[in-house]
Amino acid sequence: LQGAEEEEEEEDPWQHKEYFGSYGTLRLHLEMLSDKSRTEAYRQVILSNSASLRNKVVMDLGCGTGIISLFCAQLAEPSEVYAVEASSMAEYTRQLVKQNGCEELVTVLQGRAEEIELPEQVDVLVSEWMGNCLLVMMTTSPLLIHFEFMVESVLLARDRWLKEGGVMWPSSAALSLVPCQADSYYAETMAFWEQPYGLDFTPLQPLAQQEFFTKPKFSHVIEPEDCLTAPCDVLQLDMYTLQVKDLEEIKGHFHFRVERSGVFHGFSAWFKVQFESLQRGGAPVELNTGPNSEPTHWKQTLFMLDRPVSVHAEDAISGSISLHRNPVWRRHMTVTLHWSVKRSREGTGGCQVGTKSFPMWR
Amino acid sequence: LQGAEEEEEEEDPWQHKEYFGSYGTLRLHLEMLSDKSRTEAYRQVILSNSASLRNKVVMDLGCGTGIISLFCAQLAEPSEVYAVEASSMAEYTRQLVKQNGCEELVTVLQGRAEEIELPEQVDVLVSEWMGNCLLVMMTTSPLLIHFEFMVESVLLARDRWLKEGGVMWPSSAALSLVPCQADSYYAETMAFWEQPYGLDFTPLQPLAQQEFFTKPKFSHVIEPEDCLTAPCDVLQLDMYTLQVKDLEEIKGHFHFRVERSGVFHGFSAWFKVQFESLQRGGAPVELNTGPNSEPTHWKQTLFMLDRPVSVHAEDAISGSISLHRNPVWRRHMTVTLHWSVKRSREGTGGCQVGTKSFPMWR
Ligand SMILES: [Ca+2]
Ligand SMILES: [Ca+2]
Repeated sequence: LQGAEEEEEEEDPWQHKEYFGSYGTLRLHLEMLSDKSRTEAYRQVILSNSASLRNKVVMDLGCGTGIISLFCAQLAEPSEVYAVEASSMAEYTRQLVKQNGCEELVTVLQGRAEEIELPEQVDVLVSEWMGNCLLVMMTTSPLLIHFEFMVESVLLARDRWLKEGGVMWPSSAALSLVPCQADSYYAETMAFWEQPYGLDFTPLQPLAQQEFFTKPKFSHVIEPEDCLTAPCDVLQLDMYTLQVKDLEEIKGHFHFRVERSGVFHGFSAWFKVQFESLQRGGAPVELNTGPNSEPTHWKQTLFMLDRPVSVHAEDAISGSISLHRNPVWRRHMTVTLHWSVKRSREGTGGCQVGTKSFPMWR
Repeated sequence: LQGAEEEEEEEDPWQHKEYFGSYGTLRLHLEMLSDKSRTEAYRQVILSNSASLRNKVVMDLGCGTGIISLFCAQLAEPSEVYAVEASSMAEYTRQLVKQNGCEELVTVLQGRAEEIELPEQVDVLVSEWMGNCLLVMMTTSPLLIHFEFMVESVLLARDRWLKEGGVMWPSSAALSLVPCQADSYYAETMAFWEQPYGLDFTPLQPLAQQEFFTKPKFSHVIEPEDCLTAPCDVLQLDMYTLQVKDLEEIKGHFHFRVERSGVFHGFSAWFKVQFESLQRGGAPVELNTGPNSEPTHWKQTLFMLDRPVSVHAEDAISGSISLHRNPVWRRHMTVTLHWSVKRSREGTGGCQVGTKSFPMWR
């Protein structure tokens, strides 16, 4: 039996077991629910559209504890809410729906987006599918690693269950990027070895570069003053037209103008999503996870250069970012950054170019 | 081959692969070196004994980057320092010794304490073997779990390589315990479910209790004002007389007097170690990882009760703690706490007793 399980895992490039298994733990749900910016944004979407949701059919995909479905039932009068959850959390979701007296309106369905059967199509498909760097979630609670690439499930559900003219929440998503300083992180992981306790530990610096700068640093908090330029939206996803095959490789370009002299340690990335109003001309709700917004559990993602680059006001940093989905391990991706620094002043090094690929897994 | 590896792992109750493999990563060494209280304590031990260390032979067991050996070579004039490291970090340790011009004095030996061969016995055996809750180290860097039960290696090395009359650093160790409040932790993990966003999520509380209160919470920082009583040393280890077999079960008793009314959420534990002076009558150096000392990377360990207990000034909390080493998984142990609360006032519940066992692994 052990052998059979082993084989099964090897032939499971989706790592379904790891994915849905780990989601059965409360820690992640608590982290998401405790994130007020995130949860209140969804609550606000329901609240500001409560009149328009009357008699509508809603699907809440990857509902977790069912909080969004419960918001729908309590703040609006939909005709039906289908709360879909693949993990075994679904059993608890049913209890929570009952405990809050919403079992007339909310139906919990346990299953994956590809498998579930609904009795009808839906007017609204709402989901909180966003991960770190928008597409890949990597949560490290103390003893757990968790990956997501959930947007694909949302697109599959959309194509199968969303009515013609139905609404997607979020309706669009963008990935933002900014060249930044990361003084403390650089000092703690790299400069540290120069003279700890009066000793010379520089022989460890190549090891430090490999260990700390090869992968992106998730859950890095960047302060507004760490940004060397204004941020730029490098990717835009339209949740109505986006296709699964588009996710294989997503590319964007950037052009930044440095606002002040500083040390260019790397790029910081985050996402924002918009929820369009059900009312024509109504204001959309936005959830922005950047350094100028309220903190969220996603924080920001830091991509460190191998060596810091000094930059000056008016220097130009341009280049491209590509997110390449792993052809075998479908929840993994690689982020590749190309950049060049064009100097505004003579004699400060001219144009400097770099390229680096970051695996988005452990 | 896969099958063979699988089998090997199953027949490796020491989990050597996991243990020594994970130690090859820089993250843990950085965490330890960046801990100024810890590293400066060892530096202080060498510095305050520098005259007495002249022409002495020293063994630095589990030397890691070799920082203690380098302190010996730079601050004192030992005749020889044997720096012993089992993991592949030893290669780097050799480079660091050379880089700092200490290769005449410091010899790096790669191997386990049970295996290494020294050309001579040693006058001083120094080691930083302490883990969370003194005996078990459980470091969770972002993507890594690491266990230690290193004290056994120190005892084996002592019996084999320490000269008659030689010195052990640390010379003694104690585990301290205190009944404490853990208001924020309780609020965030348990009270949270009572009314999040106006909903009733109490059906998740049994799950929360299982997920957050079953195991000890490592790396919990307790503030002095969280302590409900003065702390008590529940275990004392003499590093000269301690035997490997003593580690199978270690038991201690406690008797606390509550100093002020509050909520008894659990027990907090930490350790302190003493390094005796090589000079007769010289002052020992102490490293204390408790809430009244400088913070360390060990922080404190929190053992949550299943249900909080209200206590009042002059109530007595007494009982016992036992650390039981797992007979199969030799790096693991179980901590069992028995306690009773004896009320100082009439009509406040009388005597309340409880018992709980905490597995010290994931
Ligand atoms: Ca998510
Ligand atoms: Ca240690």
